[in-house]
Amino acid sequence: MRMYDIILKKRNGGKLTKEEINFFVKGVTDKTIELYHISALMMAIYFQGMDEEETLNLTLAMSDSGERMNLEKIEGIKVDKHSTGGVGDKTTLAVVPIVAACGVKVAKMSGRGLGHTGGTIDKLESIEGFQTSVEPEKFFQIVNTHGLCVAGQSMNLAPADKELYALRDVTATVENFSLIASSIMSKKLASGSDCILLDVKVGSGAFMKTYDDAEKLAQAMVKIGNGAGRKTVAVITDMDKPLGNAIGNSIEVIEAIETLKGNGPEDFTLLTKTLSSDLLKMAGIDNAEEKVEEVISNGKALRKLADMVKAQGGNENYVYDTSLFPKAEFTYKIRAEKDGFISHMNAESVGIACAKLGAGREKKGDSIDFTAGIKLLRKTGDKVSAGEVIAEMYSSDESKFTDAEKTFNSSITYSETKPEKINLILGKL
Amino acid sequence: MRMYDIILKKRNGGKLTKEEINFFVKGVTDKTIELYHISALMMAIYFQGMDEEETLNLTLAMSDSGERMNLEKIEGIKVDKHSTGGVGDKTTLAVVPIVAACGVKVAKMSGRGLGHTGGTIDKLESIEGFQTSVEPEKFFQIVNTHGLCVAGQSMNLAPADKELYALRDVTATVENFSLIASSIMSKKLASGSDCILLDVKVGSGAFMKTYDDAEKLAQAMVKIGNGAGRKTVAVITDMDKPLGNAIGNSIEVIEAIETLKGNGPEDFTLLTKTLSSDLLKMAGIDNAEEKVEEVISNGKALRKLADMVKAQGGNENYVYDTSLFPKAEFTYKIRAEKDGFISHMNAESVGIACAKLGAGREKKGDSIDFTAGIKLLRKTGDKVSAGEVIAEMYSSDESKFTDAEKTFNSSITYSETKPEKINLILGKL
Repeated sequence: MRMYDIILKKRNGGKLTKEEINFFVKGVTDKTIELYHISALMMAIYFQGMDEEETLNLTLAMSDSGERMNLEKIEGIKVDKHSTGGVGDKTTLAVVPIVAACGVKVAKMSGRGLGHTGGTIDKLESIEGFQTSVEPEKFFQIVNTHGLCVAGQSMNLAPADKELYALRDVTATVENFSLIASSIMSKKLASGSDCILLDVKVGSGAFMKTYDDAEKLAQAMVKIGNGAGRKTVAVITDMDKPLGNAIGNSIEVIEAIETLKGNGPEDFTLLTKTLSSDLLKMAGIDNAEEKVEEVISNGKALRKLADMVKAQGGNENYVYDTSLFPKAEFTYKIRAEKDGFISHMNAESVGIACAKLGAGREKKGDSIDFTAGIKLLRKTGDKVSAGEVIAEMYSSDESKFTDAEKTFNSSITYSETKPEKINLILGKL
Repeated sequence: MRMYDIILKKRNGGKLTKEEINFFVKGVTDKTIELYHISALMMAIYFQGMDEEETLNLTLAMSDSGERMNLEKIEGIKVDKHSTGGVGDKTTLAVVPIVAACGVKVAKMSGRGLGHTGGTIDKLESIEGFQTSVEPEKFFQIVNTHGLCVAGQSMNLAPADKELYALRDVTATVENFSLIASSIMSKKLASGSDCILLDVKVGSGAFMKTYDDAEKLAQAMVKIGNGAGRKTVAVITDMDKPLGNAIGNSIEVIEAIETLKGNGPEDFTLLTKTLSSDLLKMAGIDNAEEKVEEVISNGKALRKLADMVKAQGGNENYVYDTSLFPKAEFTYKIRAEKDGFISHMNAESVGIACAKLGAGREKKGDSIDFTAGIKLLRKTGDKVSAGEVIAEMYSSDESKFTDAEKTFNSSITYSETKPEKINLILGKL
C-alpha cells in the first residue's frame, strides 16, 4: 500500500477502505509516513470529505493507536461528558458531582485551557492541594469508592490523533466535520465510558459559529459513538454569550459550588440540570429530573464534590467555605460606555480579555493566575445606563487591566431595543 | 508572512499576491519552508486553482529562483521549441537543423527520457562521440558559428520548480493546469529564447488525454509566455498514435535524418515542416513554408545537423551514412493477431513496450540500450491480415521480447471497419 495511491483516491473523491485508513493511522502513529503525505491527504479530505463509514474507521483506528482506559475495574455503568469548548464553561464541575450523587459513576479525563477557552483541569487546580495527575489504579479506586474522579490525561490515549491534530493545526486543515468529529471521538472512545454525552457549543465563543455547523458536527459524533457501540447523545447549546457570570479559574469553581448549593446563575443552572438528567437517563435511571433536584437540595451533590476533592488530595473545606479561595490582589470595575441594551457580547473576545488578565494561556506550558478572571454583572439582553458597572476584572497584575478592558469593551454591542433572547438549549440528537 | 495564512487563503479560494508567491518560492528554493506546508498548499491549489496573474507570478518566481541562460552573446533572434512529450517524438532532431539552415538560431536545452517517453538527449547520444554536456561559453560559440546547439540542462535552471515538481509527483498534486504550465514555462523562460513554440500533445501517448485539456494547458502556457514578454505560440498535435514509424533511440535519429533528406514518414514530415515554418514566422521570416522545402531539398538542413554533430564532438559521418549506427543484435517480428483494421494503437503502451526492450528508463539514472526499439510497419487505420508482420522489435537482450510483445499487442484494437482519421495538427493558439 502506498500513501500516493491513498491521496490520489481521496483527491479524486474516492472512498478509503478500512485497510487504507488503518495503514495511514499506523504510519502516523509510528511516524513511518512523511508529514508531506499526511498534510496532502488532510487537504484532500478537507475538500472531498469522508462518509460515515470512513469517519468511523478513522476514529476507531486513532482510538486504537495507543493505550486505552480499561474501566472494567469500575463496577456499573460509566458515563462521560464532553464539551466542544466555550467561555465560562464550568459544567463538568457541577454535573459530575450531581450525577455521582445520583449513583452513576463518572471516570473523567479533562484538559487544560488554551487560547480563549479555559480547562477543567486548570480550574480544579485552583483548589489547594488538588491533584489532577492520578495513576490509573488510584483513579479506579477513587471512582469505585466515591463514584467520580476528574483527572488530567496522563495515559497515551489516541496518539495518532495528537500527531494528526498538530499537523492539521499548522496546515489549515482543521475545519472539516469528519476530521473534527473523529479527533474528539477517538479520545472519548479510548477513555472507555459506556455512555457519552456531547455538549456541542454554538456561537461567538464556540468553535462552531452557526447552528447548522454545530448540528453537522453533533451528527457526525453521535454516528461515530453509536457506530462504535457506545450510547451517545449530543445536546447543542448556546455559546454566543459566556456561560454563567464567572469566567476564570477559582471564580468559576466558586460559581459551580454555588450552583451545587442551588444558588447558581439561571443559565448555568439550567445547563447543569439538563446535562445531569440526560446523563442519568442514558444510564437508565428513572425520574432523572427529580433526582437531580433532590441531590442539589439535600446537599448530596455538594458533598460528592467535597469527597472528590479530598480523594484527590485537595482541601475539601474550600467546597464548604469558598472564602478560603485566595482573592486577586487587584479589582477593576468596567462601566457601560453608553445607555441602552447590551445587544451582543462576543464570548470569544471576553475569553481573550480573561486570558489577558492572566487566567489563560497563549501557548502550552504558560503558567496561570488562578485568581484572575471576569465577573459579569450584566449580560446580553440587560438594560444598562452609561457609567454603570457591568463587570469586574480581577488580576494579580494591575498593569493588565488596560488591555483587557479594551478587549472586553470591544466585545460589547449596545442597542436601543431589547435583543431577541437566544435559548440556551438549542437542540438534542 | 506565514505559510499557514497563505495555505488558508488559497484553501478558501482567495487570490495569492505576488509577495505571497515570491515568499513561497523563495522558501521552496532555500528549503526554509516545511515540505508539509508545500504539499498542503499544492493540494489547495489543485482544488481552488490559480488565476492568470497568480500563474504568471508563480512562473516568474520559479524562473528567477536559480541561474538563467543569458543568450545575449548570441546574435539575432533565438527561438526555442518544447514538446509536452510523446512516443516517437524526434521532432527536435529535424526541426532544429531546418530552422538553423533558414538562418534562425536555436539554442536548445533538452531532457532525457523517463517512463514511456524518450528524450532528445538520449537519442543524440546514440551518435558516436556526441557530447550533450556543453559548457555555456562553448554552447554560445557553437550557436553563433553554426546557428544551433542541443545540449542537456547543465545549469541550475528554475531549482524551485525541480523541488516543487518532485514533491507534487509523490503527493498526487501534478494534475493542475496552472501548476503544469508554470513548471514547463519556468524552465523555458530561464532558458532565455525570444520566441517559444509549444507542441502540446494530446491522446493516448500524451500527458493530456483530451483536446479540451490540451487546449487549456496550451492557453495557460501561451498566456504565461506572452505575459513574460516572450513571443509564444502553441500547436496542439495528435499523440493518440506514435509519431512516425520509429520508436527508440538510434532508430529515431535515423528517421529524423531520413526526414531531413525528404524521405520521412508522412505524419512526422508534416509535423516537422509545420513546426519549422511556425518557428520561422515567429522570428519574422517571410515565405517560411517555401524556405523549409528549400533547405530540405537542397540538403542544407541535413548539413546543419552534421555541422552540429561535429561541433558537439560527434561523428558527422553518421548523418550522411546511417548504416554506421550500431544495429541491435536481435530482431523480433510482431504479427497481426487477426484480420481487420487497426482501429487504435495505444501510444503509451507502445512506449512502455519500447522501454521494456531497453530503450527507456524506469527510473532516473538507468542505462539505455541505444539500439533497442520498435519499428511500426502498420499503423492506426491500416488494414491487416492475421499473421502479417505489423512491427519489428529490436533489442540487445533476446529475453525481453516476450514481455514487450505482450505489451505491444495489448496496445492494439482491431475492427472490421476503417476507423475515422485523426488529423495530426489539431489546433493552434
